[in-house]
Amino acid sequence: MISSDPSCLFCKIIAQEVPSTKIYENESVYAFLDINPINLGHTLVVPKNHSENIHDISEEDATALMQAGKKIASALKKGLHADGVNLIMNNEKASGQIVFHAHLHIIPRLEADGFHHWRGKEFSKEEIEKAGEKIKNEIPL
Amino acid sequence: MISSDPSCLFCKIIAQEVPSTKIYENESVYAFLDINPINLGHTLVVPKNHSENIHDISEEDATALMQAGKKIASALKKGLHADGVNLIMNNEKASGQIVFHAHLHIIPRLEADGFHHWRGKEFSKEEIEKAGEKIKNEIPL
Repeated sequence: MISSDPSCLFCKIIAQEVPSTKIYENESVYAFLDINPINLGHTLVVPKNHSENIHDISEEDATALMQAGKKIASALKKGLHADGVNLIMNNEKASGQIVFHAHLHIIPRLEADGFHHWRGKEFSKEEIEKAGEKIKNEIPL
Repeated sequence: MISSDPSCLFCKIIAQEVPSTKIYENESVYAFLDINPINLGHTLVVPKNHSENIHDISEEDATALMQAGKKIASALKKGLHADGVNLIMNNEKASGQIVFHAHLHIIPRLEADGFHHWRGKEFSKEEIEKAGEKIKNEIPL
């Protein structure tokens, strides 16, 4: 039994109410081509159950997302002769998430395709360690 | 029994031969602060078993990576009051991977922290669909 949100674009795609180019599907996830690809072959994997992001996705769906991502990443390397692949999951608006149904981007990369990673500011060792303490305090034992 | 590569930096960190600030650990994974954080709290999760990337990591370790990533992402949201979080796994040099031991970046994000996602070129619908076919052909049934 799939739980879906009738107002969600990705739920509509999963239900075939909105067209998409399917790459892969199993009982837990649906994968389709991003219509605004970073590079050719850019694929999105979504859990069939509606969840918004990494915080509310079930452990089972998070596992299914990763396993399908692994399968697709390797298929994309073979099929497109990609030199690399990024797996990216953006969570909440501030991270760049646009559709609020949890999804994993599988992005094929080519040598010298011109995309570069973000560069952080300079932080002091004390600032870095203090942030670490704050995270550790919130991890359930 | 953990399989490690004696020449690998992250294997040395896991074995405590190289110091790190530990955020989380269980029988399968080790998580520690990135020493060059994009934002404060930027954490790396690595499987204890050495693998290079998404292609050769075991299914069990990929699951463990994702489950720990979920736990840390939510702890970081609470502890640092992050507005968002990116989970990123770079695979192979062309994707931006620098240390060739599989790892998941957990990056806290703040509204207006100034990082923007890559923009793709314009591709034709035909080019996009053709790439999709090439991926589908390589997915094991």
